[in-house]
Amino acid sequence: MASQPHDSSRHDNTLAVIRSLREHGPAARVDIGTRNGISSATVTSISADLLQQELITELPPDVSRPSGRGRPKTLIHLDTEAACVICVKLSINELQLVVGDFAGQVRHSEHHSVATLTLTPGDLTALLEEKIAAVCTTALANHRRLAGICLAIQGVVSSHSGTLIWSPALSFRNAPLSPPLAERFGCPVLLENDANCIASVLATQPAYAGYPNLVVIMLGYGIGMSVMIDGVPFVGANGSAAEFGHSKYQPGGALCACGKRGCIEAYASDYALYREAREVLDLPAGDSAHPSEQQMQALTQLAMQGDPEAQRIFAEAGRALGYGMANLLALFNPDLVLITGSGVRGYAAMQESMQTALDEALVSELIGPTRIVSCPWDRDMTCLGGIAIALQATDSQILSAS
Amino acid sequence: MASQPHDSSRHDNTLAVIRSLREHGPAARVDIGTRNGISSATVTSISADLLQQELITELPPDVSRPSGRGRPKTLIHLDTEAACVICVKLSINELQLVVGDFAGQVRHSEHHSVATLTLTPGDLTALLEEKIAAVCTTALANHRRLAGICLAIQGVVSSHSGTLIWSPALSFRNAPLSPPLAERFGCPVLLENDANCIASVLATQPAYAGYPNLVVIMLGYGIGMSVMIDGVPFVGANGSAAEFGHSKYQPGGALCACGKRGCIEAYASDYALYREAREVLDLPAGDSAHPSEQQMQALTQLAMQGDPEAQRIFAEAGRALGYGMANLLALFNPDLVLITGSGVRGYAAMQESMQTALDEALVSELIGPTRIVSCPWDRDMTCLGGIAIALQATDSQILSAS
Repeated sequence: MASQPHDSSRHDNTLAVIRSLREHGPAARVDIGTRNGISSATVTSISADLLQQELITELPPDVSRPSGRGRPKTLIHLDTEAACVICVKLSINELQLVVGDFAGQVRHSEHHSVATLTLTPGDLTALLEEKIAAVCTTALANHRRLAGICLAIQGVVSSHSGTLIWSPALSFRNAPLSPPLAERFGCPVLLENDANCIASVLATQPAYAGYPNLVVIMLGYGIGMSVMIDGVPFVGANGSAAEFGHSKYQPGGALCACGKRGCIEAYASDYALYREAREVLDLPAGDSAHPSEQQMQALTQLAMQGDPEAQRIFAEAGRALGYGMANLLALFNPDLVLITGSGVRGYAAMQESMQTALDEALVSELIGPTRIVSCPWDRDMTCLGGIAIALQATDSQILSAS
Repeated sequence: MASQPHDSSRHDNTLAVIRSLREHGPAARVDIGTRNGISSATVTSISADLLQQELITELPPDVSRPSGRGRPKTLIHLDTEAACVICVKLSINELQLVVGDFAGQVRHSEHHSVATLTLTPGDLTALLEEKIAAVCTTALANHRRLAGICLAIQGVVSSHSGTLIWSPALSFRNAPLSPPLAERFGCPVLLENDANCIASVLATQPAYAGYPNLVVIMLGYGIGMSVMIDGVPFVGANGSAAEFGHSKYQPGGALCACGKRGCIEAYASDYALYREAREVLDLPAGDSAHPSEQQMQALTQLAMQGDPEAQRIFAEAGRALGYGMANLLALFNPDLVLITGSGVRGYAAMQESMQTALDEALVSELIGPTRIVSCPWDRDMTCLGGIAIALQATDSQILSAS
């Protein structure tokens, strides 16, 4: 029997076909080949295997739109029922579960209000097991297997070991979250920082594809960040890199949720803005330590309408952001900084003082050609990113199991 | 004729043999094979080519040290005369030129006092051409070719384009330095930040080899930094990343050489320490804006002997370093931070306040397991690093030209 020297390149090409179909949707074999630099014959052979493994399907030729001469091309597409993945997003007082199909499309989404700060590690594991099991029952009625789970959590995580190091949504620290779930559900359980999930989605968008050094700053209840280098999140030695929110603005300054003073987050996060504002402004009642979207909208509205106190508070937040940005630019020299997250609602009120502070802090040679732009927060991309990450991480396993 | 499908792996293996000999010195073919995972037959075939190209030589077997049974093994070694490279180090008021041979050993070194701050771009290029040409004449008497030149400069450089962006040693900015020299000497001219040269040497030392996320901080006239990720310097979008010295400690604080206020360098560099000290202490006369090693030694001595003013000044510098370190750890989460450079002479007087400031600034979860250690500055490794970088960058060219 002949040896098979090309097994690993065959495997790589098969993954490329799957990912190309996931990214671009149904396509003809010849177009998939062109797009990925694979010969037509190889794509044909790979797709025969994938059809047999029931990982792709053939779509009937669209005779209404003939593409030039000859008969219409048969398109292939991922079999959406081949597998599903689940992304669980944990943020302060909220749990969201989303099911994605094998093509990366969202098939189900549910939200639960949970008093996250009162949970013990055991409570959280039990809660996650219960909610995932319930979602699984429905999901497995429509999909042939659960390929993987991604936990997307605000805070510091060690992706390698699946350990939560520290999250503003939880009152405990250093808890292994992935291992018990992986055992319970018999599939890989990835643990990711929420900003990395979002950045993974943004980095693939055509508008941002030309920026190999991309920084995404997430404004909101806390302040998160993701540093993408050549499309891969930079996580540092044990997963806690890119903690922009806890880099420093003012030694000995405002108190941060982390317990230390003078962090950027202690000036520019939702809770910091609301803490300053509730002293001097007439704002909606409610938990002012964990302001709701409605409370934050009311505060932002005041600044937009010209209230001088509200404007002063956002300007000081912008100044802290500008000094933090100076450190980012001096240390990472990114091509592009994208500012997003729910807190981007107040960006217009912070932008001018942010730019002034940045120019005050850093020589123009170090600001260089870095672009700083905001990105509207019209939908939460965390779970979309978590689904993409879970599929990407489990494709090989699905292939070898099929 | 048979096609040669393994050309690129042959080339890679040849480079591996050359680099193994450079790193470990003379070795037997079988040991080179074992060390690099290459078959003995391949090493034998590669070394036959390299002998013919006069890039290696055979050493006579050392019969006085028989290695077990059988006849002593013949060792091969790089032919030191095959090529040379030149590293030019430019720092404030000093130009150093070093010639390295094909084995990476220093063969010649010379220093020149130059009033660097008075130079125009044209002056500098003319000076570099003159000094390099003079060194070349001697070097080419002992080496068959000049393979490349590395300019190692304190400050911000764009390695891609060979452009100096900004250096504390020069009063002009944004000047293309490599292109005219490459044309004049007909070889590649690399432009590197001095800290990256040093870090490239340190990263290969066995003591630091197990730290894939390594940060090197250079204390001295200015404050430099190199971030090595998996052995490669992280330079950012246009080469100006890792500018730790100009990350911020105190908004609106002490004046920095860059013209801005509150940079770490404005507190913890030689000039900043001396500026504070000369107001209150009896110190050697001289250019206090550019203190000499002797002046800095005198100041450091005072702190070591317990002078409270000198101790206060170093403690404040340590505090600034500690806050800068907090940002580094929050953003890069390195395995190891090495503090070195000539300014490490005063580290003992800064260390305690640096650690206190770091603990004050950052939660323990973000300090994590990062080790922070000082590394004695008993010799300047800049030129050694420049030589290694120039050889590494030109090996392929030497191979194809031989």
